[in-house]
Amino acid sequence: MTHTTQTQSRAEELVARCKVLASFSEDAGSTRRTFLSPPMRDCHREITKWLTAAGAEASVDAAGNLRGLYPAAQPYAPRLLLGSHLDTVPNAGAFDGVLGVLLAVSLLESLDGRRLPFAIEVVGFSEEEGVRFGTPFIGSRALIGTLDNELLDRRDANGVSVRRAIENFGLNPADIPRAVLSEDTLAYLEFHIEQGPVLDSLGLPLAAVEAIVSQTRMEFVFLGRANHAGTTPMHLRHDAVAAAAEWIVTVELAAKNHPGLVATVGRIEATPGAINVIPGEARATLDLRHKLDDHSARALDGLITLAEEIATRRGLSLRRETLLRQKAIAMNPFLVGQIEEAIRSTGGMPHRMASGAGHDAMILAAKIPSAMIFLCSPGGISHDPAESVHVDDVAKAIECGLHLLAQIASSSEFQKRMCRA
Amino acid sequence: MTHTTQTQSRAEELVARCKVLASFSEDAGSTRRTFLSPPMRDCHREITKWLTAAGAEASVDAAGNLRGLYPAAQPYAPRLLLGSHLDTVPNAGAFDGVLGVLLAVSLLESLDGRRLPFAIEVVGFSEEEGVRFGTPFIGSRALIGTLDNELLDRRDANGVSVRRAIENFGLNPADIPRAVLSEDTLAYLEFHIEQGPVLDSLGLPLAAVEAIVSQTRMEFVFLGRANHAGTTPMHLRHDAVAAAAEWIVTVELAAKNHPGLVATVGRIEATPGAINVIPGEARATLDLRHKLDDHSARALDGLITLAEEIATRRGLSLRRETLLRQKAIAMNPFLVGQIEEAIRSTGGMPHRMASGAGHDAMILAAKIPSAMIFLCSPGGISHDPAESVHVDDVAKAIECGLHLLAQIASSSEFQKRMCRA
Repeated sequence: MTHTTQTQSRAEELVARCKVLASFSEDAGSTRRTFLSPPMRDCHREITKWLTAAGAEASVDAAGNLRGLYPAAQPYAPRLLLGSHLDTVPNAGAFDGVLGVLLAVSLLESLDGRRLPFAIEVVGFSEEEGVRFGTPFIGSRALIGTLDNELLDRRDANGVSVRRAIENFGLNPADIPRAVLSEDTLAYLEFHIEQGPVLDSLGLPLAAVEAIVSQTRMEFVFLGRANHAGTTPMHLRHDAVAAAAEWIVTVELAAKNHPGLVATVGRIEATPGAINVIPGEARATLDLRHKLDDHSARALDGLITLAEEIATRRGLSLRRETLLRQKAIAMNPFLVGQIEEAIRSTGGMPHRMASGAGHDAMILAAKIPSAMIFLCSPGGISHDPAESVHVDDVAKAIECGLHLLAQIASSSEFQKRMCRA
Repeated sequence: MTHTTQTQSRAEELVARCKVLASFSEDAGSTRRTFLSPPMRDCHREITKWLTAAGAEASVDAAGNLRGLYPAAQPYAPRLLLGSHLDTVPNAGAFDGVLGVLLAVSLLESLDGRRLPFAIEVVGFSEEEGVRFGTPFIGSRALIGTLDNELLDRRDANGVSVRRAIENFGLNPADIPRAVLSEDTLAYLEFHIEQGPVLDSLGLPLAAVEAIVSQTRMEFVFLGRANHAGTTPMHLRHDAVAAAAEWIVTVELAAKNHPGLVATVGRIEATPGAINVIPGEARATLDLRHKLDDHSARALDGLITLAEEIATRRGLSLRRETLLRQKAIAMNPFLVGQIEEAIRSTGGMPHRMASGAGHDAMILAAKIPSAMIFLCSPGGISHDPAESVHVDDVAKAIECGLHLLAQIASSSEFQKRMCRA
């Protein structure tokens, strides 16, 4: 079919464009593009060119988000927000974030001037990764009105505040309230690479994201007694690493036995840390995630109890500290259903999954119906120059997006479910 | 009994002397006395005073060992070597090493001029801890003729070689061959605090050391795959820390189930070591000790096999490196029996045990019959300012030493077993 051939070449162009944008970097030889760094300007310039050619009007808001408005068939129609983020981690791949923005551009190009009952606003968020200021979602927080003074005063490693970075880019922080979502915004849809191995292992190109998991980050400190590794018999030890190891084994087992739960000990340190000294202290971190808050709360309670039992049985004590506790965010059920239907229309098998990582959709979900579509990440590789996408999957994503636009335009739910107030 | 009262006051004086020597330190407020550091000279001066008063002739050999000769009843009689080391670790206690040297001095004082069929040579070794040059036993190696050029050229943190340190102390490295044991040395006996909790947990003051354990030190590196802690389901992980933890649990279990074996993972590190990244690499050290070489070899083989099985089952690879492999050293059986008899003569229950740490006796055992007597370490505490001894146990040790001297002097084994060549 002509359409398929055209979509295929659009997909190829989209991948090529992602690679062009990856060349706009703060670092030579690898991609790093943090909040309002100079290469972000090149990025805006290129995308603006494509947006304008597709019939959208582009601008940059005071939080550094690139925004392009493609008008509806009628004036005063509501708008649908489509996009993702334009910033990257250090030594990044070419697709994390950027692909979602360019996929929205491709959808406008595919419309080829055709108008829908709603406008489409393409958004390229200025900041999602949290690299420059140690806190993520600066771009999307501006859209929901939570880019507050505390965040604006945060400083990067060079002592430059968010506010000053905005000014240095030629923008005016006083205009930030004007970046807030238009009242008539229907919903937010975000295409994003999965950044995990699930779709690749299932052989699927696309999935509907039904929730963004809760995240808990803790540090556990097992306190035993340091002693001579040669002169202390096994039964007279209070070995903090042995205790931590026993706990880590149970952490893994608990997660394996609990569907959808992931638990990770990413860091472990022994003190004093000498080869011939029984460790008196072991610090281990825990990262725990589940799409349902009550599940993660129950699992966490279980792991804390286990740590306490292990410590007590071994004559150790336990200290623990919660570093992060973030609730799970459900995606809009109506939109998730529409995404499944759209995937089915492309000939694919609909698959629902939770996102194990945070995304801008999680922030926007506080204000408007939001949902995400994941594209397969070959090998599950992300945040790495080897990050990739299959061109065929990108073509499927474009088709899926076009079906979604059509479904939303014709859906009877559209009026009931999507209109605000 | 008068004798007991006298021994008790000698024991009190010995403990007081240990504390005086602990004040001779490189550090203000804590004890650190490394190889031929300035406070070692103060140490030599004080002990020389006591040796001279007891009728011994004191000198310092070219390897910095303090040596005091108490003559025999007859000229040309053989000599018995008694002593321990005078150097300390940083932030040391007052008894590790020093106690054994001063116990030998106390024995000479107890003889009160009485001559035995053998001379007694008291030795205060210059270096046993390995702190200054990262390699231990510099003092005792000089006595068996293995203080070679490689060791003499070793440098400390300031670039000063062993050779230069000897010259700086006013000694002549060319005289080192003259530090070698006299041909007529019968045996070496060393009193030393246990530095472990065994005797304290058994409620015993003294033990005969029958062997110094073998020591193996290794590093195990589990190599998995680093990945996103949120987006990688449990069944698709190759988590290096989870693998290492499983292995550490089996290490502890294997040692608990194998009498006399001690196994310690003193250091563990995860890479990349971020709270939200599945570790791709985990490095864990192993310190394994047993008094019998075939037991430690078998245990080690078992633990290596387990590590390999765990790695293979989890789709990881394993790298390992042997950092130290030191054979077990048996103490002289005749002397061990004599020590048990001497302990019995003090009214104590004889107890045999292995030393989990290395000692000078291990070095001298290569050339002459050697054995050790352990004194209880309250709380098993050592290498710490809280290191202590019970005065009563020191009195028992002095009594034990006097019995030993009498036994050796009268033993029919003495001629058969103890004379060399």
